[in-house]
Amino acid sequence: MVRIAVDAMGGDFGPEPIIAGVVTALKERKGFSVVLVGKTEEISLLLPKEFKSRVEILDAQDVISMSDAATDALKRKESSIFKAVDLVKNKTCDAVVSAGHSGATMSLATLRIGRIAGVLRPPLATLMPTKKQTRVLVMDVGANVDCDAEHLYQFAIMGGAYAHNVLSLEAPRVGLLSNGEEDTKGNEVTKAAFKKLKSNPYFKGNCEGNDVFSGDFDVVVTDGFIGNILLKTSEGVASMMGSFIKTSAKKSPLSLAGALMMKKVFNSLKKETDYAEYGGAPLIGLKGCAIISHGKSNAKAIKNAIFQALTYVQSGVNDEIEKKISILQEK
Amino acid sequence: MVRIAVDAMGGDFGPEPIIAGVVTALKERKGFSVVLVGKTEEISLLLPKEFKSRVEILDAQDVISMSDAATDALKRKESSIFKAVDLVKNKTCDAVVSAGHSGATMSLATLRIGRIAGVLRPPLATLMPTKKQTRVLVMDVGANVDCDAEHLYQFAIMGGAYAHNVLSLEAPRVGLLSNGEEDTKGNEVTKAAFKKLKSNPYFKGNCEGNDVFSGDFDVVVTDGFIGNILLKTSEGVASMMGSFIKTSAKKSPLSLAGALMMKKVFNSLKKETDYAEYGGAPLIGLKGCAIISHGKSNAKAIKNAIFQALTYVQSGVNDEIEKKISILQEK
Repeated sequence: MVRIAVDAMGGDFGPEPIIAGVVTALKERKGFSVVLVGKTEEISLLLPKEFKSRVEILDAQDVISMSDAATDALKRKESSIFKAVDLVKNKTCDAVVSAGHSGATMSLATLRIGRIAGVLRPPLATLMPTKKQTRVLVMDVGANVDCDAEHLYQFAIMGGAYAHNVLSLEAPRVGLLSNGEEDTKGNEVTKAAFKKLKSNPYFKGNCEGNDVFSGDFDVVVTDGFIGNILLKTSEGVASMMGSFIKTSAKKSPLSLAGALMMKKVFNSLKKETDYAEYGGAPLIGLKGCAIISHGKSNAKAIKNAIFQALTYVQSGVNDEIEKKISILQEK
Repeated sequence: MVRIAVDAMGGDFGPEPIIAGVVTALKERKGFSVVLVGKTEEISLLLPKEFKSRVEILDAQDVISMSDAATDALKRKESSIFKAVDLVKNKTCDAVVSAGHSGATMSLATLRIGRIAGVLRPPLATLMPTKKQTRVLVMDVGANVDCDAEHLYQFAIMGGAYAHNVLSLEAPRVGLLSNGEEDTKGNEVTKAAFKKLKSNPYFKGNCEGNDVFSGDFDVVVTDGFIGNILLKTSEGVASMMGSFIKTSAKKSPLSLAGALMMKKVFNSLKKETDYAEYGGAPLIGLKGCAIISHGKSNAKAIKNAIFQALTYVQSGVNDEIEKKISILQEK
């Protein structure tokens, strides 16, 4: 029985969508139980009685808000995030899911749960859509801003293991984000990482910005600074194109009618690019599992994040990462 | 009379679209003349007689192809790019436009024409569309892969001057590409650049990936590695969305009819995001003007690149850059 700790108070919309997500997850799958961490009185009101056998509540009266500094998180021992993370630290739970302050969750998870032996820095990974309607795992998307070649190398190793074990890809194609596909392209850090990765069987070489969405790569490795820019750039372009189409369709009755007839198309595009379909972002390389969900997560996003945590734990990916990282260190 | 050197042989489609672009430019505007550099016999055949008074031909029998190494460019003294650049070096021309090997053009322009006093590295700048149907100048998009804080600082100064003088913006809003808008966000290089930029009147702070397309910034500064990734990522997302819409519209007759009715909308979207509308990318900070055009440039792109060169030369932006950079150095 996998046990998942859920920060019930994190997220921009309070406990309601989070508990709704937990309830749907419990309805849809067996084999796991949940510890909801937060204000008992609020949680009890929202949790239907029939689920109480698979849900425990751990009281936490403090909530770290989005405007608080991540650096204070370690001191806020009564906060829902702190207590939820500590359930994984002390092995009461196997995984933690939080839609709360992502900086606080990442530093608490890294410092309290700790890293797998040999792992220098746990990267945050997220799934993005591709042209071929497959998914690509991009990492790091924000946990580690300044990275050296060894960090990127380890990200690639961990990303490959995650894609193999959790995403069930037989031979994941791992790419290194760069400014050209040729071996000679890159900045100083990526060129050094490229050399280290050359002998890795999953490594397919440099991957350009447009290749991220081509479906030709399963894992794309970069540092947390560029990963964040990549993520936000994609959001920006998608939103700009959406707003062009909207504004320009409104200018003529014919186009507007066309847009209405294409509603299904736009809805499927929206679904394809909706983060809620993807769950949350795993912080990979911990002695446990932590899924960082979007602050704006709705019930579906929380449900998918819980399923992601479940698959993560059941996949044995952490043993695989430990093995692969220890081989590196023997070299 | 402004004189513009045009590499007639560069570009993926040979001299035809380039000469067609030159001819349209000459038809549409007065006040400039062109030196076409390349194989005289090919150029003569393509150039209508009536334009010969405003066009000179400089023979160059060698062409640097896309597969050649940029490092060899300096040795290829009979190549069209080398000779076109040297027309600016020896002041025969004021500007050079090339759709040929961009690496070769950039290194020839930097080394042969030379940098404005005090300029450490000339960045390549390109215009991108925004939600508000304005343009944003992103730089560096590929000339300098590894940059330090001083480089980024100078890019911001030069970008501000370009936006003011060439794009005629009274008070351009300059942003530093980062992983968050708060002052504290950034990697080590951007945080140091942020401190240097703080007192600059045009500087509006950090700019996230999505903000590039918001229309809230006129200039966005980053290094050439990230700039290239940003550019290619935007292309990738736009192409993925386009292909989703196409594939998914084809699945139902209703959606397909809708798509046909929206043709005007999609065409205007295409136009809004078409590089040909933007001309080429200026390499800023040279003792002269060099416009790097896309290898796939059509006649319209070449025409716009020529107009861009014309505006660049007439704007006096180089004097402005020289003044601003010398003030920095007195500090």
